[in-house]
Amino acid sequence: MCGIFGIVGHPEASNLTYLGLHALQHRGQESAGIVASDGHSLQAHREMGLVADIFTAPVLEKLPGGAAIGHVRYSTAGGSQLKNAQPLSVEYVGGHMAVAHNGNLVNAQELRTALEADGAIFQSDADTEVVVHFIARSKQPTFEQKAVEALSKVKGAYSILFLTENKLVAVRDPYGFRPLVLGKLKNSWVLASETTALDLIEAEFIRELEAGEMVVIDETGLHSSQPFQPTRLGRCIFEHVYFAKPDSVLFGTSVYETRKELGRQLAKEQPAPGADLVIAVPDSGVPAAIGYAQESGIPYDVGLIRSHYVGRTFIEPQQSIRHFGVKLKLSAVRQVLKGKRVVVVDDSIVRGTTSRKIVKMLKAAGAVEVHLRISSPPTQWPCYYGIDTPSRQELIASSHSVEEIARYVTADTLGYISLDGLGTAVGDRERTTFCTACFSGKYLTGELNNASAPSTESAPKLAIIA
Amino acid sequence: MCGIFGIVGHPEASNLTYLGLHALQHRGQESAGIVASDGHSLQAHREMGLVADIFTAPVLEKLPGGAAIGHVRYSTAGGSQLKNAQPLSVEYVGGHMAVAHNGNLVNAQELRTALEADGAIFQSDADTEVVVHFIARSKQPTFEQKAVEALSKVKGAYSILFLTENKLVAVRDPYGFRPLVLGKLKNSWVLASETTALDLIEAEFIRELEAGEMVVIDETGLHSSQPFQPTRLGRCIFEHVYFAKPDSVLFGTSVYETRKELGRQLAKEQPAPGADLVIAVPDSGVPAAIGYAQESGIPYDVGLIRSHYVGRTFIEPQQSIRHFGVKLKLSAVRQVLKGKRVVVVDDSIVRGTTSRKIVKMLKAAGAVEVHLRISSPPTQWPCYYGIDTPSRQELIASSHSVEEIARYVTADTLGYISLDGLGTAVGDRERTTFCTACFSGKYLTGELNNASAPSTESAPKLAIIA
Amino acid sequence: MCGIFGIVGHPEASNLTYLGLHALQHRGQESAGIVASDGHSLQAHREMGLVADIFTAPVLEKLPGGAAIGHVRYSTAGGSQLKNAQPLSVEYVGGHMAVAHNGNLVNAQELRTALEADGAIFQSDADTEVVVHFIARSKQPTFEQKAVEALSKVKGAYSILFLTENKLVAVRDPYGFRPLVLGKLKNSWVLASETTALDLIEAEFIRELEAGEMVVIDETGLHSSQPFQPTRLGRCIFEHVYFAKPDSVLFGTSVYETRKELGRQLAKEQPAPGADLVIAVPDSGVPAAIGYAQESGIPYDVGLIRSHYVGRTFIEPQQSIRHFGVKLKLSAVRQVLKGKRVVVVDDSIVRGTTSRKIVKMLKAAGAVEVHLRISSPPTQWPCYYGIDTPSRQELIASSHSVEEIARYVTADTLGYISLDGLGTAVGDRERTTFCTACFSGKYLTGELNNASAPSTESAPKLAIIA
Amino acid sequence: MCGIFGIVGHPEASNLTYLGLHALQHRGQESAGIVASDGHSLQAHREMGLVADIFTAPVLEKLPGGAAIGHVRYSTAGGSQLKNAQPLSVEYVGGHMAVAHNGNLVNAQELRTALEADGAIFQSDADTEVVVHFIARSKQPTFEQKAVEALSKVKGAYSILFLTENKLVAVRDPYGFRPLVLGKLKNSWVLASETTALDLIEAEFIRELEAGEMVVIDETGLHSSQPFQPTRLGRCIFEHVYFAKPDSVLFGTSVYETRKELGRQLAKEQPAPGADLVIAVPDSGVPAAIGYAQESGIPYDVGLIRSHYVGRTFIEPQQSIRHFGVKLKLSAVRQVLKGKRVVVVDDSIVRGTTSRKIVKMLKAAGAVEVHLRISSPPTQWPCYYGIDTPSRQELIASSHSVEEIARYVTADTLGYISLDGLGTAVGDRERTTFCTACFSGKYLTGELNNASAPSTESAPKLAIIA
Ligand SMILES: Nc1ncnc2c1ncn2[C@@H]1O[C@H](COP(=O)(O)OP(=O)(O)O)[C@@H](O)[C@H]1O
Ligand SMILES: Nc1ncnc2c1ncn2[C@@H]1O[C@H](COP(=O)(O)OP(=O)(O)O)[C@@H](O)[C@H]1O
Ligand SMILES: Nc1ncnc2c1ncn2[C@@H]1O[C@H](COP(=O)(O)OP(=O)(O)O)[C@@H](O)[C@H]1O
Ligand SMILES: Nc1ncnc2c1ncn2[C@@H]1O[C@H](COP(=O)(O)OP(=O)(O)O)[C@@H](O)[C@H]1O
Ligand code: SF4
Ligand code: SF4
Ligand code: SF4
Ligand code: SF4
Ligand SMILES: [Mg+2]
Ligand SMILES: [Mg+2]
Ligand SMILES: [Mg+2]
Ligand SMILES: [Mg+2]
Repeated sequence: MCGIFGIVGHPEASNLTYLGLHALQHRGQESAGIVASDGHSLQAHREMGLVADIFTAPVLEKLPGGAAIGHVRYSTAGGSQLKNAQPLSVEYVGGHMAVAHNGNLVNAQELRTALEADGAIFQSDADTEVVVHFIARSKQPTFEQKAVEALSKVKGAYSILFLTENKLVAVRDPYGFRPLVLGKLKNSWVLASETTALDLIEAEFIRELEAGEMVVIDETGLHSSQPFQPTRLGRCIFEHVYFAKPDSVLFGTSVYETRKELGRQLAKEQPAPGADLVIAVPDSGVPAAIGYAQESGIPYDVGLIRSHYVGRTFIEPQQSIRHFGVKLKLSAVRQVLKGKRVVVVDDSIVRGTTSRKIVKMLKAAGAVEVHLRISSPPTQWPCYYGIDTPSRQELIASSHSVEEIARYVTADTLGYISLDGLGTAVGDRERTTFCTACFSGKYLTGELNNASAPSTESAPKLAIIA
Repeated sequence: MCGIFGIVGHPEASNLTYLGLHALQHRGQESAGIVASDGHSLQAHREMGLVADIFTAPVLEKLPGGAAIGHVRYSTAGGSQLKNAQPLSVEYVGGHMAVAHNGNLVNAQELRTALEADGAIFQSDADTEVVVHFIARSKQPTFEQKAVEALSKVKGAYSILFLTENKLVAVRDPYGFRPLVLGKLKNSWVLASETTALDLIEAEFIRELEAGEMVVIDETGLHSSQPFQPTRLGRCIFEHVYFAKPDSVLFGTSVYETRKELGRQLAKEQPAPGADLVIAVPDSGVPAAIGYAQESGIPYDVGLIRSHYVGRTFIEPQQSIRHFGVKLKLSAVRQVLKGKRVVVVDDSIVRGTTSRKIVKMLKAAGAVEVHLRISSPPTQWPCYYGIDTPSRQELIASSHSVEEIARYVTADTLGYISLDGLGTAVGDRERTTFCTACFSGKYLTGELNNASAPSTESAPKLAIIA
Repeated sequence: MCGIFGIVGHPEASNLTYLGLHALQHRGQESAGIVASDGHSLQAHREMGLVADIFTAPVLEKLPGGAAIGHVRYSTAGGSQLKNAQPLSVEYVGGHMAVAHNGNLVNAQELRTALEADGAIFQSDADTEVVVHFIARSKQPTFEQKAVEALSKVKGAYSILFLTENKLVAVRDPYGFRPLVLGKLKNSWVLASETTALDLIEAEFIRELEAGEMVVIDETGLHSSQPFQPTRLGRCIFEHVYFAKPDSVLFGTSVYETRKELGRQLAKEQPAPGADLVIAVPDSGVPAAIGYAQESGIPYDVGLIRSHYVGRTFIEPQQSIRHFGVKLKLSAVRQVLKGKRVVVVDDSIVRGTTSRKIVKMLKAAGAVEVHLRISSPPTQWPCYYGIDTPSRQELIASSHSVEEIARYVTADTLGYISLDGLGTAVGDRERTTFCTACFSGKYLTGELNNASAPSTESAPKLAIIA
Repeated sequence: MCGIFGIVGHPEASNLTYLGLHALQHRGQESAGIVASDGHSLQAHREMGLVADIFTAPVLEKLPGGAAIGHVRYSTAGGSQLKNAQPLSVEYVGGHMAVAHNGNLVNAQELRTALEADGAIFQSDADTEVVVHFIARSKQPTFEQKAVEALSKVKGAYSILFLTENKLVAVRDPYGFRPLVLGKLKNSWVLASETTALDLIEAEFIRELEAGEMVVIDETGLHSSQPFQPTRLGRCIFEHVYFAKPDSVLFGTSVYETRKELGRQLAKEQPAPGADLVIAVPDSGVPAAIGYAQESGIPYDVGLIRSHYVGRTFIEPQQSIRHFGVKLKLSAVRQVLKGKRVVVVDDSIVRGTTSRKIVKMLKAAGAVEVHLRISSPPTQWPCYYGIDTPSRQELIASSHSVEEIARYVTADTLGYISLDGLGTAVGDRERTTFCTACFSGKYLTGELNNASAPSTESAPKLAIIA
């Protein structure tokens, strides 16, 4: 998953992009990059790691100019390499361009094959690069027309920023899978994945880009258009459930309030009568847990403490001390849990292994009953639109009933919110404006026969070399 | 401030010490070290940085043996150098010894001067090193007798672990300023600053060491003694207020429950009638905020989100984007705060600058009233016993009334808990077993004329060199 | 300048390539790279720095397979970046390919412009990349036919190696500017810039590739062809004068013996009657100095010691201690020089600044006369075929007579070998098989109007960004 | 082995020390350090590695002041750690002091044991540290008197520099084992192991310090004294044979000329009638080879090329490509050697393995006869005075006759210079002013029963820990 940020018309463009990326760090912790334009040429810096470690003062000084775009990235194992870090930046016949993309294209592999057959050479494994090649090959006169031509060929999710020597172009795909907001900081325009980035730099929130909208900012000002075929909306509901930062306003509503509402709805659908207290799996479960507590009247308390020093990348140093993973991140508060019937609220269950460890930890700390409540429906399908979910086989809910999952995670009871309840909480009971494919299997872009998964079959070709 | 951990009798002593230090990381983020014994000799590794970054598998493999001690350290600017990282380890006439110390000695400077006059050469600036020199010079026959002789000469706070080739010795000073607990993991003994470290490695909590107690663990087993002159107790009350991790049991009570009790007491002493909601300054303010909400009946909610990516060491990259400090760490949830009269609970106010920024951030996000409540009395005096507080001049409460502070931080009202209330919440209304010097000015070790501050006066001595 | 190495049919291909590059390190110290094939896919590693620092055991382990090519590179300031390090490796419609190139193409810039106009995106500034794009776009059926088609479009100097999953292709341009030799190590074929690399790995020297020859090695064995339009030979005479390692056999003769012969010829043309001793500017001047001494009968001695610790990249740390450059590299032996009339032999004079410092150093050490003798004619023209020479203006001989140069470098006398003498020493008096353009101005590829120099003119385009 | 440098009275003291150490790098490549004084306090920087890599501009900027001392170090495996890097710098009762020592003390271990028994704590394994402890414990009134008292207790080789806030003290032991020279650069005094360091910074060579001399430089100027018991001279003859840089003047004579004289003497004692040419094992064998050629009339030529890219620390990356060591460093010039009877001159034979590889390489390159000539007598005894020689068992000459060695190294003939010839060449036929212990076994400091070798015997002490 990824976060993107852009600013144009500010003397400290790359410094502000650094801050914006910092605010969006939760959207990707693997690599980060900034490309800045000083009106003549683009300067780029990309590195594996966290924003605050990468962009030291000397690095930022080498990114001068009044416009910049930035990117934070997370990806599953295979593609985790520097060459896939964004923004991509290339020289082509029209000059320089840089691209920062959030989302995933579902027809990238077939387009890439076609481009390669036509002599194109790819620098990265990223789906984004096909867009770059289409732009470089376009015969359209202006950059924005080239970009429209290129994007017309791709299918899937994209909130995307382009930077040239003298232009910033922002586009959101017609489904509107991923968020993208427009802000204003004095005389400069700002674009960001989430409003939390605007708040940090004290930019004013203007509006969300519409699905299918293209915004061009250059010396003549800001121009908006709707260059693509319209289609139904498919905003990612999982951004509300888990992914976005709680202080952001997303698709028109507060993430925090939406999550609390999910908790309230969950309490209605899946009550836990007789329980003594409601706790969250911190931090993502906190808003829904508070909602659940408010709705149910069961008191909210803190039963698990989240360590400040564990990121996603924690590696256990030694075979014999494996499986400390969850315990290093979360520790139980015995005096709160002892002898209590506990409702514990989390946002989702993926493989079930973490939930199982948490339930066991709560019981070891003295909880007599553990009632697990999940503020989204069972996650049964992989996401092809930019969220890193494992394959179907690994998703416990794709092959197990709720009861079986409850038994696996050793919870006394387990309750998920319903699809309808999820829709209700986000204000769209029928889910006609949201994507819910990971819960419902209804992929808006049609049949997906693993087009994006590269074949790994290949036989050795030459004995003398192998 | 520091955290210490030790284990003896386990084939993976250094791996477990690594885990223990990880659990104690909140007690010091500047440097970490482990010294292990294989029965013949000691191996040491110390580095600036976080436990998880320093102790990779190859590093831990070079620390073999059945006993180990470890240390995490935080200190104010001056002494932040590798040479001050602990555990100290030296060779002396008796063989090898390593030392890990939590606390601060108030007569270290004068003892050091005397030792230097007698030919001693110091490797570090750490007060701990005087203990090492006294041990090296002691004519006592056994290591534990040498240690007792050495510790009898020092005054102040120490929870301290010594490791030799074949012995682990743990001592807590007669006041018992700093915590130190004993645990058991199968056949091995464990010592740690806080119970959270025992929980992580699934060791059984046996008991807290008593003030003035010395525990020696060697091939003949565990031996306890009380070798020092007894005195009144002076357990650091600020450990409960802020420093310890909420899931620990400290001085016999749960840190989390104590903080919640502080919040309840605060609600009684400093109500906020008419307020709409209670929020915390996360994470340290959360337990007291929940207690305050429960006692007052005003609903608890989340108004500030704490970033997962900001540690204490965040450095702003550029003059022009200074003062983003607090905003990078905390972001306000507008939809929760908008139009509300808000009670915000934090544990303490040091300089006032952070509180001021938080209050302003809440108002900018729409709060119409901000009522700041602090779960400890005004911090008026520096700590000489191991907590890094700034000098008196920098402590806003040392020179300003509560009203003046309220005005400075721009809160509508400001209320601190009373000293009596603080005592009550920790179960010792008269505070006869706690140190409260940073709030009361009553230093248990007597007059302190800045003995520990080194003179910085010195004139250039030779023109040809300067 | 660059060095290239390839091997196919050996289980330790990348280890041997590492050794080969080590032996060729004098041909480029800026970056190094190896690409290996295991029959299925190519693995690459490129880094700035020296071969021995880059290719540690863990790095080499990640380069498995029976075939590998490698490259060492030196370039002038501008292009000194990782992205220009070779071997280039890309994926294209035909699979993977990697390229290692020694030499310089004179029409690269115009070809690049045309390719970009056709939608190509370049990854690097290297001229080599146009060849890669032509191959990717070729409709020829086999890789070697694609390569021939691509190379037919470029003009200039190339000794070049291509590696695909199952083939190694080696080509030398029709002029034969740069060397390339073929060797055999048991059942594997080896290609290298110089024979010194064959000697190191104990491979048998088979023969030099002919100018214009293409060699293809695959599962069916080694195949040679002459696919290009024949032309006259233009082997780089400066490889003999300075660039190659003295123990190599180059264009059919020993480098060391050729240099000694240059010294003898120089002694005949430019004697120094009455001199007491002949010394070299080490190490490059040593062979010619020995030849000069033998021919003239003046005794050879060592008057300058070359430091083992100074590479080309020495950076002086402080303004005030600048100009220590030459002194850090060379130190004078006073007792040898004192009161003596000294002949000092070097291979060439570029800007004159180093020679000037050397002459002054010799006089400061007591030499009463310094007679500078140069074993090549005045360097008057830049090289466009792969040697990094400065622009014409910086070459002292392009605007100064020998007499003026003598005065500038403060030598008592200065003598260069003649063009005829140079030809005689290499066994081709008329120079019909060698390039001598840097001495004669006769560029074999025709008029060169700085085609390869990129224009740096460019006006800011957008006020809002700059 | 080590090199030392000091300067006092120059505004750029640490920059000049950096240059001085660069010139002395051949005396130690393992670690380097500089300590500077600004008249108030000492600043230190020590690191493993080469001078030019360690002392970048920012590092040097942190070493301000008008006086500095520096050290380069090489040592055998065991002690190769940062804590042993010099200059040592400590705080003691008298203030700060730093020490840079070249040489080895033969009674360090027994002194250390005694100091530890008296409570001293050692920071390093270096013998030098006993001197520091004696100074710290001395009751003498001035620093120089403390230093004299301390040095009176030690036995062995020391050329040593002390720096305090306002004084530089230089001492050479009464035997004068290691060199130490005094120079002048404008108003500042310079001290260095060899004159090559003076030449580099353009300082004037004043004189060598006398054996047993102490020089004190402070605000009152330079003061010389002879505070120790006089004894016979024992200047290290091996400095002339191999260790010092050829352009230095050592113990009153030119190293280069001395080596050439050794070659001449060798030619007289060990002629090689019928040989076609004389070559050197570069670089150390070059001067003697030239001398041999001049004396014998056999022409000198270059048969081995020394790589510019191999230091002492070359590590082969892979089991299967071991034993490339010598070949990576030296390559043979076939055309020079082919069919020739070759005299090859080197300075010494230690284990014989390198010589064996060289002889084989020469024969593989076509030499029909190889006559090995060594410009020092058989190395039969280890050095206890600061040169890193292996133990007796590893020295091939300690257990093999010259004939046996010849057979082992596969040379057709082998000839060493005689002890008398060695003495003659250095101008002291009877060797009454030189140490020759490594050749003769006559140790000037008396019986040496491996006092300095630490016992490695030690039994595990405690089962529970091991
Ligand atoms: N301070 C916070 N409070 C509540 N939720 C947060 C906070 N910070 C981030 N989040 C949300 O929680 C998610 C990360 O949550 P967390 O549960 O801590 O880790 P995990 O990704 O392992 O579940 C983020 O993606 C974001 O939506
Ligand atoms: N997950 C948590 N919840 C509540 N308190 C915590 C948690 N983790 C640590 N703490 C406590 O909060 C302190 C750090 O709190 P925080 O307010 O986040 O930072 P700061 O030190 O800047 O106040 C720790 O020392 C510890 O006592
Ligand atoms: N050991 C050697 N003896 C003589 N020439 C050498 C040796 N090693 C390398 N060379 C040759 O000398 C050139 C480098 O020589 P040198 O004069 O030392 O440096 P510079 O490049 O500064 O002139 C190499 O390119 C090579 O041709
Ligand atoms: N340029 C040089 N010419 C001759 N001798 C040198 C030169 N530079 C250093 N030396 C001497 O040679 C020694 C190192 O010689 P060398 O034979 O190259 O390596 P090794 O230490 O492996 O024998 C140095 O200690 C020094 O005495
Ligand atoms: S499949 Fe799920 S995660 Fe992916 S876009 Fe749709 S709702 Fe979001
Ligand atoms: S002064 Fe305060 S912080 Fe220090 S020990 Fe006493 S109560 Fe704790
Ligand atoms: S111009 Fe000179 S350096 Fe270049 S190829 Fe020709 S001879 Fe060689
Ligand atoms: S033993 Fe040999 S190397 Fe050591 S000081 Fe004596 S002569 Fe020098
Ligand atoms: Mg979570
Ligand atoms: Mg806090
Ligand atoms: Mg040269
Ligand atoms: Mg040698």
